[in-house]
Amino acid sequence: MEMPETLLFEEALAGRAKSVERQLDELLSPRPEAGEIARPETLLSAMRHGVLNGGKRLRPFLVIESAALFDADVDAALRVAAALECVHCYSLIHDDLPAMDDDDLRRGQPTVHKAFDEASAILAGDSLLTLAFDIIAAPATVLSADSKLELVLALSRAAGIGGMAGGQSLDLAAERQTPDEAGIITLQAMKTGALIRFACEAGAIVGGAKPADRERLAEFGSAIGLAFQLADDLLDISSNAATLGKATGKDRAAGKATLAALHGPDWTKRQLGGLVAQARSLLEPFGERGLLLREAARFVADRRN
Amino acid sequence: MEMPETLLFEEALAGRAKSVERQLDELLSPRPEAGEIARPETLLSAMRHGVLNGGKRLRPFLVIESAALFDADVDAALRVAAALECVHCYSLIHDDLPAMDDDDLRRGQPTVHKAFDEASAILAGDSLLTLAFDIIAAPATVLSADSKLELVLALSRAAGIGGMAGGQSLDLAAERQTPDEAGIITLQAMKTGALIRFACEAGAIVGGAKPADRERLAEFGSAIGLAFQLADDLLDISSNAATLGKATGKDRAAGKATLAALHGPDWTKRQLGGLVAQARSLLEPFGERGLLLREAARFVADRRN
Repeated sequence: MEMPETLLFEEALAGRAKSVERQLDELLSPRPEAGEIARPETLLSAMRHGVLNGGKRLRPFLVIESAALFDADVDAALRVAAALECVHCYSLIHDDLPAMDDDDLRRGQPTVHKAFDEASAILAGDSLLTLAFDIIAAPATVLSADSKLELVLALSRAAGIGGMAGGQSLDLAAERQTPDEAGIITLQAMKTGALIRFACEAGAIVGGAKPADRERLAEFGSAIGLAFQLADDLLDISSNAATLGKATGKDRAAGKATLAALHGPDWTKRQLGGLVAQARSLLEPFGERGLLLREAARFVADRRN
Repeated sequence: MEMPETLLFEEALAGRAKSVERQLDELLSPRPEAGEIARPETLLSAMRHGVLNGGKRLRPFLVIESAALFDADVDAALRVAAALECVHCYSLIHDDLPAMDDDDLRRGQPTVHKAFDEASAILAGDSLLTLAFDIIAAPATVLSADSKLELVLALSRAAGIGGMAGGQSLDLAAERQTPDEAGIITLQAMKTGALIRFACEAGAIVGGAKPADRERLAEFGSAIGLAFQLADDLLDISSNAATLGKATGKDRAAGKATLAALHGPDWTKRQLGGLVAQARSLLEPFGERGLLLREAARFVADRRN
């Protein structure tokens, strides 16, 4: 039997996902914004294909719920959440390219370069990354100029060479030369950790949190980011293609090292338990208000797909 | 015999290029910035290869000289100029990919995907685009928060689906179906015009120009952006591979329509003359201070490579 908190969380996650999809749908309208000349149809369709694909919208959820801890403006949080999702989706589109992970399917649907072509997939990713900064800076995002700039700076550092893109570069190199444990930790902190950490930190920025609270949320994000990756690795060594909807065992087949593969499932499960406990304790100062984020920590560690 | 103004301009262009190269070299250092985890060596090398390649740095020049009209802070203008050059170089790296224009050489050197590999070229482009927003938002760029946000917004709209990336998408589509004259104009305004327009507008923003002056500089940028493209098209139908250092006649071979191809060289030269005159007249209110930008207008129309 599922606990009431879990049900509450799943309902909230689905609800936020709907709001985020509506926001993304609106942002990806055919109508050019001020300063834009036109929005070419094929490119817009490719962007929409890569974004409006029924994802769980975990990162946007983390932005929205982190912001809610600080009574942030709901619309501003939603727009920043959508901006982050654009960055996440751009990374999936580019990672799926033949020159990178070469995946034909994503959530059971053809990847963007399969549904369109490689050039459109490259440009759709580029345009989504660009759009993310547009969304944050736009007047429709009602936040102080200083908060917006903090978001632009933190997002660019989480997503660029020192974060997600750098992590993908290390991940590709790891196929040729297996990294040691420290190398795996750095790789994962960059490739998946940085953006999840940013999600939680962004909520604090949107909410105008004090520096100590902002740091607390960032640490919460780091803990669940690591848990997310460990759960993914565990899934990879124990799941099968049917439940996951994409090729599994692929990381191993490509010779990629993961902490779960290095230490085994029992160690990984203990680590996951520790990370969830750490993440949840970081939220203690927020009392009852932290309920959904506490459940999010459990969710990322327990996920089945 | 060359006129003294032309010599002055060429000296200034070369001088600004050196400053911009130094700034880019510093920004692309191996040392991670605050909030970055690490800067992976291969990715950084690929970024540096794509950026520190001896370009003319025309767009940065336009930022710096437009800013100088308004007595802007020189360091701030230089950083914004470097940010714009990161966007320009990202677009060249991605445009050169096999799935796009498939070029092996750029300024006589192997393109990034040739010197490294396709995945590194994709990620280097992604990371340079991301870095551009980082540079603008960073505390080291000493500008008001409002000015920085205006730069982020204007740059994202000039570079994204409604500008440069959208223009590249239209350009690829033009290989399959030849656009009409209006289509060519839109395509070129997006693909090359938007970023050159932004360069001049950005200088006005950095300099805290009044809205009317900002608009004037943006119009100047539009005029020389169009001249730049017409000169490029003219070069393409009349030049040869030896002087240009890259494959020419390629646009025609791929069946791409240009205004120069449509109307012929004489029409194109008349248009160029008109655009240069228009651009120069837009600078009249700035008197002697507009000298270098007026020469820049002549330079883009006259360029031989």
